[in-house]
Amino acid sequence: MGPHLFPSAPPLDVQAMEEARARWATRAMPPGALGRVQDLAVHLAGIAGVCPPPVPRKPVVVVFAGDHGVVADGASAWPSEITAAMVATVSSGSAAISVFAEALGAPVVVVDVGVKTPLDPLPGVRTERVADGTASIATGAAMTPSQAEAAVDIGTRIASEQIEAGADCLIGGDLGIGNTTAAAALIGAFTGRSAVEVTGAGAGVPAGGIDHKRRLVAIALERAEACAGPLDVLATVGGLEIAALAGFYITAAEHRIPFIVDGVIAGAALCAADALAPGTAAHAISGHRSSEPAASIVLDYLALDPLLDLQLRLGEGTGACLAFPLVQSAALALADMADLPEPGPA
Amino acid sequence: MGPHLFPSAPPLDVQAMEEARARWATRAMPPGALGRVQDLAVHLAGIAGVCPPPVPRKPVVVVFAGDHGVVADGASAWPSEITAAMVATVSSGSAAISVFAEALGAPVVVVDVGVKTPLDPLPGVRTERVADGTASIATGAAMTPSQAEAAVDIGTRIASEQIEAGADCLIGGDLGIGNTTAAAALIGAFTGRSAVEVTGAGAGVPAGGIDHKRRLVAIALERAEACAGPLDVLATVGGLEIAALAGFYITAAEHRIPFIVDGVIAGAALCAADALAPGTAAHAISGHRSSEPAASIVLDYLALDPLLDLQLRLGEGTGACLAFPLVQSAALALADMADLPEPGPA
Repeated sequence: MGPHLFPSAPPLDVQAMEEARARWATRAMPPGALGRVQDLAVHLAGIAGVCPPPVPRKPVVVVFAGDHGVVADGASAWPSEITAAMVATVSSGSAAISVFAEALGAPVVVVDVGVKTPLDPLPGVRTERVADGTASIATGAAMTPSQAEAAVDIGTRIASEQIEAGADCLIGGDLGIGNTTAAAALIGAFTGRSAVEVTGAGAGVPAGGIDHKRRLVAIALERAEACAGPLDVLATVGGLEIAALAGFYITAAEHRIPFIVDGVIAGAALCAADALAPGTAAHAISGHRSSEPAASIVLDYLALDPLLDLQLRLGEGTGACLAFPLVQSAALALADMADLPEPGPA
Repeated sequence: MGPHLFPSAPPLDVQAMEEARARWATRAMPPGALGRVQDLAVHLAGIAGVCPPPVPRKPVVVVFAGDHGVVADGASAWPSEITAAMVATVSSGSAAISVFAEALGAPVVVVDVGVKTPLDPLPGVRTERVADGTASIATGAAMTPSQAEAAVDIGTRIASEQIEAGADCLIGGDLGIGNTTAAAALIGAFTGRSAVEVTGAGAGVPAGGIDHKRRLVAIALERAEACAGPLDVLATVGGLEIAALAGFYITAAEHRIPFIVDGVIAGAALCAADALAPGTAAHAISGHRSSEPAASIVLDYLALDPLLDLQLRLGEGTGACLAFPLVQSAALALADMADLPEPGPA
């Protein structure tokens, strides 16, 4: 797919992972009894490069918002204005992601990367607008490569700032009517799957039916075939908030800070991130299995095993946020559990 | 199975559940987008009898500990002394359940219902001993009916005390070498499944192999067939800590306080609870799917759909504890999410 925009992500630290496995083997419980919680802590050791890995105590939720030109071509049951309305709802603390983050004591930052109509200033909302939404993938490229690069850079910058401010686990989310269409196209392009396979109902089947949405994705996939590399794919069929999320993940991996991936939009962003900075996906903690079909395609493609499977399909980072307590508890158990008491097994 | 020891549990409040479904339909998200989180909040409304249901903020973990005579007949890879050692580990705050409860800010109470050798006083450990462990189900009844009744009563009393002290979500756990053998026998007896189907490796396959453990369960199941009712079954093939857990669940349901069920021991206790006080299982929130085979048999039998599936098989209440944040977040979302913003779907 051509030259990469970023250096590769640091590899997971196999030494730290081996130490974590050995440490589990002597904890006060039957071998392997904590199942995937053990695997999760081993993964955290590999990410952090130390065993036991630090216990995340300061998660932060960053929700990237952007609009999609393809909504004008009937991609969604919802109008683009909903994106701005949901930015305001998150700002007011009463969106699903606000409530779930509150349960964790995690701050929520919304980043307007390109909502269609500029918003009045709102608490907790940062303005980092690249464009007034994307152009329609039904008729041309969603973004120019430089717009896509600018959006990725916003994600990397915000991740860096949050990490510098002490965030020890990054939870990314998305707002953007039409973004399951862009995500489906990106996932199709990166995984080689067809429009029929990657297209789901999203927030609601559009007026023209699922077949209309599939046709839009198919047009985008055809255009993606001519692309020169991952940034070009991201620009041609992606979205501003998806590009920013990709940058967010790349920077988290670069800094060896765990990040929890949400559903299908996050999956598309992770595909892009892993293509731009190879090895990024190995750092990703998959929060949940979204009920969108393309979400499971990404999980297979990137060999991710999600922590939760609750038939969520909301986005905003909700599934990633709900998985955070498992991540924290896994690290806490490996750090603080006692050694095996004597006598051991007979 | 003969007369019940308790009145039936109050039925779930269908009116409150209907209100909860209606309330979800107008939250700021696409219909159904929170999947099973929505079902969970509807269940909480049915349990509490009010919509929105109260958000649990004061969970408490109660771990019932007891020993099993069948260990002397080779039921486990571990000696009975491990039970007392694990009581001390929980008391010291460094067992898996201690660490997971700490992450929730939840207190942990250990109740010695009948560890083999009486323990010196330990912080956080209550002494409510019915016997020095059970008798071996390989050679006779585990308990007398009055011992089983006394153990159930301990669970009901402790649940009442915790609820009176302000606990708003009860998480039960277990400690007891040999208790997967007793749980398998109870589950086989209550569900009508065979020793081969219900017997798993537990904390570790005993020296005589899984076939030996199956034979022990088969002997117990044969004895259970002659039992006169659920209390008799519980006494004949159960355990002190399992009986106490059953009482704990019965009282939680009676008070309309949500309780989260852990793995296979909890499943056996819930079978007993639901037989003693019909309708108790309808109040249960299943925390996770244990990898023990009998755990899945209980989930099917009682029509429970667990929140987590992380291949845990530790007990102590760990899987129930890890699921608590989902329960809290579900209630919080139904209570605090905004109404749907205008404009709605096109």
